[in-house]
Amino acid sequence: MIDVEEAKRFVLSELLALPSTGMTLVDALGCVASDEILAHEAVPGFANSSMDGFALRSADTATGQATLIVAGALLAGDAPSRYVEPRHAVRIMTGAPLPEGADCVCMIEQTVVDSDTGTVAISRSVPVGENVRYAGEDVKVGQTLVGAGDELDAIRLGVLAGQGFATVSAVSRPRVAVISTGNELVSSGGALRYGEIRDTNRPTLLGLLREAGCTPIDVGAVRDEYDVIRSTFERIAEECDAIISTGGVSVGDVDHVKGVITELGGTDARSMQVAVRPGKPFAFGRIGSRRVPAFGLPGNPVSTRVSYELFVRPALRMLGGHRAIERLSVDAVLDEALKRSSDGKLHVVHACARIHDDGRVHIESVVRPGSHLMSAVAGANALLMLPNSDGIARGETVRAIILSAEALARRDEAR
Amino acid sequence: MIDVEEAKRFVLSELLALPSTGMTLVDALGCVASDEILAHEAVPGFANSSMDGFALRSADTATGQATLIVAGALLAGDAPSRYVEPRHAVRIMTGAPLPEGADCVCMIEQTVVDSDTGTVAISRSVPVGENVRYAGEDVKVGQTLVGAGDELDAIRLGVLAGQGFATVSAVSRPRVAVISTGNELVSSGGALRYGEIRDTNRPTLLGLLREAGCTPIDVGAVRDEYDVIRSTFERIAEECDAIISTGGVSVGDVDHVKGVITELGGTDARSMQVAVRPGKPFAFGRIGSRRVPAFGLPGNPVSTRVSYELFVRPALRMLGGHRAIERLSVDAVLDEALKRSSDGKLHVVHACARIHDDGRVHIESVVRPGSHLMSAVAGANALLMLPNSDGIARGETVRAIILSAEALARRDEAR
Repeated sequence: MIDVEEAKRFVLSELLALPSTGMTLVDALGCVASDEILAHEAVPGFANSSMDGFALRSADTATGQATLIVAGALLAGDAPSRYVEPRHAVRIMTGAPLPEGADCVCMIEQTVVDSDTGTVAISRSVPVGENVRYAGEDVKVGQTLVGAGDELDAIRLGVLAGQGFATVSAVSRPRVAVISTGNELVSSGGALRYGEIRDTNRPTLLGLLREAGCTPIDVGAVRDEYDVIRSTFERIAEECDAIISTGGVSVGDVDHVKGVITELGGTDARSMQVAVRPGKPFAFGRIGSRRVPAFGLPGNPVSTRVSYELFVRPALRMLGGHRAIERLSVDAVLDEALKRSSDGKLHVVHACARIHDDGRVHIESVVRPGSHLMSAVAGANALLMLPNSDGIARGETVRAIILSAEALARRDEAR
Repeated sequence: MIDVEEAKRFVLSELLALPSTGMTLVDALGCVASDEILAHEAVPGFANSSMDGFALRSADTATGQATLIVAGALLAGDAPSRYVEPRHAVRIMTGAPLPEGADCVCMIEQTVVDSDTGTVAISRSVPVGENVRYAGEDVKVGQTLVGAGDELDAIRLGVLAGQGFATVSAVSRPRVAVISTGNELVSSGGALRYGEIRDTNRPTLLGLLREAGCTPIDVGAVRDEYDVIRSTFERIAEECDAIISTGGVSVGDVDHVKGVITELGGTDARSMQVAVRPGKPFAFGRIGSRRVPAFGLPGNPVSTRVSYELFVRPALRMLGGHRAIERLSVDAVLDEALKRSSDGKLHVVHACARIHDDGRVHIESVVRPGSHLMSAVAGANALLMLPNSDGIARGETVRAIILSAEALARRDEAR
């Protein structure tokens, strides 16, 4: 038996980010920039008004009282055709270019317009630069817009669009193949024969992959036959960036996946017994001409989920080029004592966590352990990491991996 | 001027979840179940083994020493054709049906098989039910699988797939139209003329909407002409569930959006000055035959983002039927004093937040305020809510809306 950290190091040790590729800004949402991106345009490109008001010369308002001649108006998008003479002002809208001659903008709420005389009265001294956004104030040419390794979220994509970029070089989105193994599995909705069960692992993993920003490839369910499993792995390894299979890694007579992974993965591949509950059996190797990482997860749905969180998701984040490969984890306060037996293993327990008034994350309830109770873990928003011990007292803290940050919110909003 | 909470109540007061519709499980990821969904199949459907080992009669091991005749093997997916006689055992793989006669499974690691005599020796007393999963242990017929209002995440979709569901009734995914207004806006990547700027709001909002699980509709940029804006709003209101426009809500001569929203929205629509910085001008009304909510946001990109977070995103979550309409917010500790002026407004400031060893969220740095500095706010993972005051001392707490939970992680993992 090896411990979780060693198994994880084994998985992650030689993984690198996937090659980068050019993609449209739309396609890049959630991907990671492969290179630093520098600004090639100043933003704004020209001095402009940040307010609706009047562009004028600050000196004309030095006494705190001024009546200026209104000399036209400038809208956003207009070319700055006007020149502002002394004792004149130009009506200006937010975003319109500051006309030559003017050096400040007085906001409209601080002016009194007399349309009969064509003048505007201002009863304060307006400093130079007031309500002016100067060229390059937001972005200077040559400035870093996005760093290599930064995640391209909506804000960064907006910044790039604001520079006229239509495409960006980003780490490829991992294409991840999902295979279920087992003679007992049924994928369609028809009636079950005795001994058959429906495949829950594959739809769950396909959803988890989409949640993680990967492109899932549904390979389907294959029967417990060594040659079929082997040829499926060999074929799919040429078409994807990672393979996740479930079932076939334990000590049963037809647990062929571990053999396939260790055969195809060569001397670097391993079939392991990990000191974790659930999720003990686990196989990992890199297969095919592109040395695609292949994960053999246990077949029990909750075990699959735990193994996915411990080993697969961090690896996929690494393939995607992310700096932060781990989910948020926090030291959470136990609101009830937690029983566990001392068995040398890390226990991973689904739980419901909430932020309380003390600003700490509290564990309000824990899902009864039992590696096949998938319906019971629906709704849990945290995975507790319980190192070997005889139990943990109320009020002590445990490490909790947060699966849904929004669900930590102190209370649901009333509708 | 009205305060943020009043403006928000005005937006949310009469919004309801969108109608529900049948969708495939794949399409439903992230949507909200509209009805309670009950189990129509027990899971597992039959008693089966949770371990690889031998199915046997507990009574045969009562003395703590037994040598049993091996009577065949059962794989997962096999029909349970065998009957286990007294003093017999059947080799059984995980997931295979427990054969009649047997009442427990001894795991393979606790047995010694003698293939010469066709027997298996067991040196312990195996209790009834050990390593047996009974029918209905995970899910009983009639049990609630998913509650009305539950979000259909990967786990819940896996549970539904495990019951043979191919479709689910869920609240429709909001289709949200995004319109930019402004003569100065350029959407393509070509050279800019003086006075023109590139449209950053639309690509940013389209990305934020995808991050929020909505279906964005890109309406493009329209010029500052009342009739064009009006006809665009009227047309698009028939094709979407919500409209977000940027620009045209302030006090400029061509700020037509507020007029369009209040005209089309009738007496229930309002153009507001909200006591918040940035994000003061804001218009909201419900327009068209379907009374689609229409949001008029300010044109400055950072103002747009703040208004989106304060008013739009909670409303879209409500349309989507979510119980938790707010992002995670926490009381965060200020690591540096925060200056602000007392102006009667809520100030909303982008910041970088991290969880420290004390388990609390700390604000490590704050983005210099300035409503148009979009590139500066890229990378921020929190929005601080600073009520009116003359500043906040180091060590005090402020309310922080968390924009990216993963970025709260204490440290980035080394690659």
